[in-house]
Amino acid sequence: MKKRFVYADNAATTAISPYVLEKMLPFLTEQYGNASAVYSKGRKARTAVETAREQIAAALSCSPEEIFFTSGGTESDNWAIRGVCQAAKGKNHIITSSIEHHAVLNTCRFLGQNGYRITYIPVDSSGTVNPDDIEKAIAPDTALVSIMYACNETGVIQPVSEIGNICRKHAVPFHTDAVQAAGHLEINVNEQNISLLSISGHKIHAPKGTGALYIRKGTNISNLMFGGAQENSLRPGTENTAAIVGLGAAFENLSSDMDTNRRHTEKIRNRLESRLSESKRISVNGISGQRLPGISNITVKGADGEQILLMLDLKGICASAGSACTSGSSEPSHVLKAMGLSDADAYSSLRFSFGHLNSADDADYIADTLNEILRKL
Amino acid sequence: MKKRFVYADNAATTAISPYVLEKMLPFLTEQYGNASAVYSKGRKARTAVETAREQIAAALSCSPEEIFFTSGGTESDNWAIRGVCQAAKGKNHIITSSIEHHAVLNTCRFLGQNGYRITYIPVDSSGTVNPDDIEKAIAPDTALVSIMYACNETGVIQPVSEIGNICRKHAVPFHTDAVQAAGHLEINVNEQNISLLSISGHKIHAPKGTGALYIRKGTNISNLMFGGAQENSLRPGTENTAAIVGLGAAFENLSSDMDTNRRHTEKIRNRLESRLSESKRISVNGISGQRLPGISNITVKGADGEQILLMLDLKGICASAGSACTSGSSEPSHVLKAMGLSDADAYSSLRFSFGHLNSADDADYIADTLNEILRKL
Repeated sequence: MKKRFVYADNAATTAISPYVLEKMLPFLTEQYGNASAVYSKGRKARTAVETAREQIAAALSCSPEEIFFTSGGTESDNWAIRGVCQAAKGKNHIITSSIEHHAVLNTCRFLGQNGYRITYIPVDSSGTVNPDDIEKAIAPDTALVSIMYACNETGVIQPVSEIGNICRKHAVPFHTDAVQAAGHLEINVNEQNISLLSISGHKIHAPKGTGALYIRKGTNISNLMFGGAQENSLRPGTENTAAIVGLGAAFENLSSDMDTNRRHTEKIRNRLESRLSESKRISVNGISGQRLPGISNITVKGADGEQILLMLDLKGICASAGSACTSGSSEPSHVLKAMGLSDADAYSSLRFSFGHLNSADDADYIADTLNEILRKL
Repeated sequence: MKKRFVYADNAATTAISPYVLEKMLPFLTEQYGNASAVYSKGRKARTAVETAREQIAAALSCSPEEIFFTSGGTESDNWAIRGVCQAAKGKNHIITSSIEHHAVLNTCRFLGQNGYRITYIPVDSSGTVNPDDIEKAIAPDTALVSIMYACNETGVIQPVSEIGNICRKHAVPFHTDAVQAAGHLEINVNEQNISLLSISGHKIHAPKGTGALYIRKGTNISNLMFGGAQENSLRPGTENTAAIVGLGAAFENLSSDMDTNRRHTEKIRNRLESRLSESKRISVNGISGQRLPGISNITVKGADGEQILLMLDLKGICASAGSACTSGSSEPSHVLKAMGLSDADAYSSLRFSFGHLNSADDADYIADTLNEILRKL
């Protein structure tokens, strides 16, 4: 088998697409003006920033003035949760789920150590939250519900519209971490009754270090950071023009090709899972849930996930065991454990994640390589 | 007079230098791996991040593990102040100055609204803080002293080493916002007894959206953001590899040419001020203080600063009235007012800021253009 290079870790980060980089380059070179400056070089940067805001607003079906640029998904999540709680004086209850990204979980944990009561909604074996559990958990002092749009480890999509309905009925702000979903799924923040939504650039072929927070008009929120008057005085710091332009271009690009990309990545993912189903040791996590097209999380019974990753790397395959954000930590995946897997099975799990730059051959090469590795283990 | 383009707003933002962009480009293209991933594409990103950390540590004379990457100067300032205060349970007094950047001032104001007592140290007419005032203000409950290294509006350098000595003597952590000073002045955080120091990329020919916080080993500090295990679990979010590489390269570059650059920009600044001294209406703010080489803040008696800026823009000159971060606000500069200027004189002020890409001809063109404008006004 000839060695190839296969990047199957698009849920960890993606390559900047050539189209996005082309749009960014002028702002990394001659168009370096400060978007808040009054002279023409500044106004050009300002125009570019506002165009990006419109592109993102179009993708989420909201108004441009409801989009605020941040340094990434982590900041967006932190800001949404702490900002809404800070502004909701007297309310000190947060509802979230047991499978959130650590940017949400650890922010909630911090607030839990500082006077807040946190309810962690469980998931079923498919990795899905039950909206009824959320409705039951809502109390008069609930400041926020924060449930992810789709899981970064399994790709399982949560019942966001149902949760949005419930939150609207009870007049509780609803935040969703859509870092994995945005750009891949149709999102309509109005129809889905979403109050705040986090997005990240580098998961969708825009650069690292950029993201945004959608904040529905009328939502009470405090700043996470204080300083200059940028972003309507809600998020200070010189506008990162090049990255913002990249984020806008990525959304423009993905929105127009969403159906094609979805079918393409789903085909690759399904091909991989179908090839791997030949092995009795392998099961797919979250397969009974609704899933993102590109993510496949598998358990290889009795194997050491980290060891397999290193062997895959030697064969040119990039994949991961859960989230890159927790690499180096020795804990088993909290997501897989919440779905009922044992510690041992969680340690035996791998994530492959595909994007529109992958091909069906990639699935075959991964399946062949993994089957070969398993024969030796 | 032939129209030229002169960028004289380097204190607002700078062009990415060709050397820095060259170092960044591989990480905007093929080296897109997540620095926390275990496979070789991730390890290459990790190596690049750690090299940048070493380059910055070398420039500040600290250990690489005392450097933490952030999204910019604003985040660094917010983190330093809120993080140290959060960790210093029971201490609720902060000492800062009346001329700080809004990233410091507005963070202190927020804490002031949340149970903290803030002492604002005044400046003299040269724009300089008196270290004795700081020593007198230190109380048993002082959690932090935060005094900028050099002022973004006037370029006036503060007595950082003396303040460092005082803070050390009283065992109070000392933070300095060195966004304008780093890369331009020799900094030695150990000799100067600095506990925390903020830097920003885009002020020193690195990209926007990147910065760092130096945190002296042993300093008690809480997170500003919560999430993944990046940056030794103190600053979560996927490492912004390209920007971090750019920040490291900019420091490497500036450190080696610091003396040459200083003499070069100082010559341009002095030439401008000498040419402008022909006009009796013009005075230079902070001229009796120690100043950064490249910043000139002037008052044009009786003129409208914003109007002059627009007229300069028509002639191809980019300059500013104080900080770009407050543009759009109708307030006169808090820095100039703290130095004793009237509201009217503060509104009549302009800032020109030069870098190593400027030339002596730039100073002449600005002087000629400004003199021509003043003759018409």
